[in-house]
Amino acid sequence: MSKKISFDFRDGNFFSQEEITASREKIYSHLDELLAVAKTGLYEKKESFINLPQDSRLTETVSALTAKKKNSHLRTIFLLGIGGSNLGTLAVYDALRGQNFFSDENNIRIFFLDTVSPLVAREAEAIVKKAREADEILTLVISKSGSTTETVANFEFLYALLNKKWGEKANERIIVITDSGSNLEEKARAKNWEILNIPAPVGGRYSVFSAVGLLPLALAGFDISKFQSGAAVMLNDCLSKSEDNPALMSAILIFLHFYKGLPINNIFFFNPELESLGKWYRQLMGESIGKEKNLTGEIVNIGITPMISIGSVDLHSMVQLYLGGPRDKFTSFVYIHQQGLAQVPTKTALASASLLANKDFAEIMSAILEGVKTAYRERKLPFISVSWPEISEFYLGQFMQFKMLEMIFLARLLNVNAFDQPSVEEYKKETKKILKG
Amino acid sequence: MSKKISFDFRDGNFFSQEEITASREKIYSHLDELLAVAKTGLYEKKESFINLPQDSRLTETVSALTAKKKNSHLRTIFLLGIGGSNLGTLAVYDALRGQNFFSDENNIRIFFLDTVSPLVAREAEAIVKKAREADEILTLVISKSGSTTETVANFEFLYALLNKKWGEKANERIIVITDSGSNLEEKARAKNWEILNIPAPVGGRYSVFSAVGLLPLALAGFDISKFQSGAAVMLNDCLSKSEDNPALMSAILIFLHFYKGLPINNIFFFNPELESLGKWYRQLMGESIGKEKNLTGEIVNIGITPMISIGSVDLHSMVQLYLGGPRDKFTSFVYIHQQGLAQVPTKTALASASLLANKDFAEIMSAILEGVKTAYRERKLPFISVSWPEISEFYLGQFMQFKMLEMIFLARLLNVNAFDQPSVEEYKKETKKILKG
Repeated sequence: MSKKISFDFRDGNFFSQEEITASREKIYSHLDELLAVAKTGLYEKKESFINLPQDSRLTETVSALTAKKKNSHLRTIFLLGIGGSNLGTLAVYDALRGQNFFSDENNIRIFFLDTVSPLVAREAEAIVKKAREADEILTLVISKSGSTTETVANFEFLYALLNKKWGEKANERIIVITDSGSNLEEKARAKNWEILNIPAPVGGRYSVFSAVGLLPLALAGFDISKFQSGAAVMLNDCLSKSEDNPALMSAILIFLHFYKGLPINNIFFFNPELESLGKWYRQLMGESIGKEKNLTGEIVNIGITPMISIGSVDLHSMVQLYLGGPRDKFTSFVYIHQQGLAQVPTKTALASASLLANKDFAEIMSAILEGVKTAYRERKLPFISVSWPEISEFYLGQFMQFKMLEMIFLARLLNVNAFDQPSVEEYKKETKKILKG
Repeated sequence: MSKKISFDFRDGNFFSQEEITASREKIYSHLDELLAVAKTGLYEKKESFINLPQDSRLTETVSALTAKKKNSHLRTIFLLGIGGSNLGTLAVYDALRGQNFFSDENNIRIFFLDTVSPLVAREAEAIVKKAREADEILTLVISKSGSTTETVANFEFLYALLNKKWGEKANERIIVITDSGSNLEEKARAKNWEILNIPAPVGGRYSVFSAVGLLPLALAGFDISKFQSGAAVMLNDCLSKSEDNPALMSAILIFLHFYKGLPINNIFFFNPELESLGKWYRQLMGESIGKEKNLTGEIVNIGITPMISIGSVDLHSMVQLYLGGPRDKFTSFVYIHQQGLAQVPTKTALASASLLANKDFAEIMSAILEGVKTAYRERKLPFISVSWPEISEFYLGQFMQFKMLEMIFLARLLNVNAFDQPSVEEYKKETKKILKG
């Protein structure tokens, strides 16, 4: 049997079983709808993202393109994309490759170009200049609409460089991931760039198990089959009507605390390399439930503000506020037992190290986390705990699937559309006006 | 005349002049106290951090130690410290050195060890193993109390490696920055490690202009005299009773919005390399005004939750919530005109690039920011704007001084102690119990 993520919804929970059950029943019809979506295996509804991890045609397409484009010369993947087009990949990449400053000389590096930054663009330029052959580089352009301003600007900048250096050959090293029928796809066809599509109903923030996430991760050498199977295992649990459905339980607790007057959701990772995973979740929550209108069109200006904390760093920065300040946050502690031995020596130099002598770093971190949880319990601050045995593709797949299901349940409980982001257009139209001059 | 940071407190402000004036007058006695502190130039009060940037003895000490320990072989500075001991340095380092993934082969790199992480510890170990001589490395141990768990654990791990490789010579490459009289200082004296002190009343989150920030920045090659002079210029403006006092104006607007029901403060940088500066500010606000008790000892559980946003990345992640969701945030936009030309070519490949052709990235980013501000204005969401012409030591010094003054004014308006963090002890005592077994 596969190992699963562990959840503790009891410790730190101050709601009664009755309150929880009442909310659970509101979601049962939603579960039936999702089961029907899962049964078809098709991409007909916004919820169809749940079918991605078990889509064998998708897996074949991604594997075939990976085999075709990846060769022993490949050093750098330029990933041009922002928001839903890169946050999932970045989350997995940072979690598994460690923090940016780690030496990864022997690995294929993904170089992310998201916003427009001359600093980042010039660094990309230096990589192109240094490359001895076109095969050292692959350029992935990811944009659902095909017209995201930052992605287009970065692409034009980079394409001019690649084209200048390698001429027609540059076109063989470009892959586009976009909606079928976008302008970008049309141009890609004309230029013979490779094309992968995102199923139309799947939104950016739910697309990590589509080609958007799978292709760059496969190219960079991660085991996407484990990533997918983690998601599949979790989907099963999250579509069940049992009391152990973790996505449902988590959604209910976030919902109940929101209505109790807690407008902030604090996801508190005790592994610093998961900060980007937090940023992926931040988009998922920010866009999915931050809404001007509810499902019946009434103006509600609803939403929960997600924040990311990193242990133990933020214990020296934010925990004074968390413990002493207003009771306006619901917290999820996430901890994965640290891998890779690092130990305080038996014979220590400093007197203040007496308690630490001979202890492993994982043991120290675990004691810190338990100290924090005890302080939360004493102050009756609400929290849930999530943990798993190691940071790997399999568990990341589980966690991301869990969070996406949690979010659509939460949207249902809040009576909002989990899949749109209409307010974003407000600034975009202004920006366009300015660019038009 | 020196150039200064520009502030716009009018655009995005929905309070009347009367409301602002009433708050301003509450702070005038505080300004008198601060002027008295500035006049002494001494370190007798918690507010004495304002005297650091003009402390010529401190400058001499830091410069002398830099000259003594920095040589042409130096490649890596291990900075062991967490919270107030490293966030200020990290803020300046990331702002000026660009994001972590930039190639900085010719620079001296600061390697930060904050929390306990086997991944990071092993990377540090690899650097020690690779070094050919002791002079390539300097180890800075920064802890005000001298007994911070994570810093002590990291130090013991690293010291064992350094000692094994270089024996007694390792002791010549260790510098300790701590309070006078700490256990760490005592040990440092016995081992002949270099020692710098932090003036006792200066707290960690107000210590960036003490040796805590100045020494690592000077060693890494930054111009600390410009950093200090920026702070000095700003101090002058922030101690004035004029309507243009930026720290006072900013504190008043944050305060008024908090009492109007906005519990979240959103600092929104449009330069991604300033994210660590945001994290420094997050600690400053989280610890300085997140308090269980007010100055008269009543339980108030007060505080404003700081959050960091990054433009344009978070426009594709959080702005749906900001525009459509609850009106619970007060925003500070911070934008520095991007340096270093990167341009979209005149002849573009994609149809969607038509508006971008021949435009510089800075122009595009500026149009995006203006689009966002217009959307905020239309929704009457409150904000202030801060900008300056380039990211440099001088302007970072101004900004950090401005924010520290803003925070002590804000604490005064909220009637809390800006300098303590009593609730932090709650988890620490639990962690100690667990470590004792």
